[in-house]
Amino acid sequence: MTSAARARRPSHGPGSLLEVAVGEFNTRGYDATSMEDLSRAAGITKSSFYHHFAGKEALLRAALERAIDGLFAVLDTDGARTGTPLTRLRHIVRGQVEVLVEELPYVTLLLRVRGNTESERWALERRREFDAQIAALVRAAVDAGEIRIGVEPALAARLLSGLVNSVVEWARPGRGTSTLPDEVARAAFEGILPAR
Amino acid sequence: MTSAARARRPSHGPGSLLEVAVGEFNTRGYDATSMEDLSRAAGITKSSFYHHFAGKEALLRAALERAIDGLFAVLDTDGARTGTPLTRLRHIVRGQVEVLVEELPYVTLLLRVRGNTESERWALERRREFDAQIAALVRAAVDAGEIRIGVEPALAARLLSGLVNSVVEWARPGRGTSTLPDEVARAAFEGILPAR
Repeated sequence: MTSAARARRPSHGPGSLLEVAVGEFNTRGYDATSMEDLSRAAGITKSSFYHHFAGKEALLRAALERAIDGLFAVLDTDGARTGTPLTRLRHIVRGQVEVLVEELPYVTLLLRVRGNTESERWALERRREFDAQIAALVRAAVDAGEIRIGVEPALAARLLSGLVNSVVEWARPGRGTSTLPDEVARAAFEGILPAR
Repeated sequence: MTSAARARRPSHGPGSLLEVAVGEFNTRGYDATSMEDLSRAAGITKSSFYHHFAGKEALLRAALERAIDGLFAVLDTDGARTGTPLTRLRHIVRGQVEVLVEELPYVTLLLRVRGNTESERWALERRREFDAQIAALVRAAVDAGEIRIGVEPALAARLLSGLVNSVVEWARPGRGTSTLPDEVARAAFEGILPAR
């Protein structure tokens, strides 16, 4: 087969099956999606599906890992590890938004997780670890006197997470998003609706 | 029966049944909750339950109406109807937070609605109407020159909604929340983490 022929042929590797599964989970809800639904959506047999993934929960786990790994990778970048707490936070917020946009369906799935399966509970625990790191940085920025007096660190960390995560409701494939990281960072640090 | 005896007796009126139902819906998920679960949680028979509510969907509808009515009532207050767009928005944000705290379980249920039943679709439609009114005010504030140059009205309206709604993850019965409306308004208009 020529590479042109391969390119035209629908891919059924693990990556594209995961993409199909995440789309179905987000549309129908994880609990309401069967392996039957997934094979139909992917256009392959159930046994081909099982060749790549042990089952529905393995797909969920892989999808959640992709979102979690993307978010934690932001904390490992230089800009997130060096500088004052406030500059680190600004860098992290921008990076989070980039991951939300790039991995939109995976992060959407992650944010809807309620803890009904082992993988969901694992993901909730990792999200809590992520949020705790952000909350510690917010507290450090307040303690360092970088933030205006009167800001309550725990609430600020919670609101920051709510603001950033609401981007999944806004971002759409094809909607211009190149300025989004800066716009969200500005909203977080200067106000969503700053008076003129 | 004396009024003291009545006060000691657990109430099984429609109000308290609704409260029990909303608690179960939020814990188990609406789809996973049966009328059996609801009667057990309320400590009454299924037929007593049906005396007050035609079924699960009627309970869902009543609970969603309570949240929606609370939010729309904010738009009808004087401060939401008079003044500049920006002062009206500030008033509405504070009012929204108050409703979120007062009607926490009902608003939590509302924010999780996905559109699987007629009542859920109705609630989604009403939420869209609410958000559209906020978005129109944001646009009016930008057009009136009250907001700093460069703020994109549609994105700002979306982020504002994300910020305000994230309060349901923060608010807990008993947690001191008297200053919450002002803190959230400040976060929206001056930044969650304003530099000193």
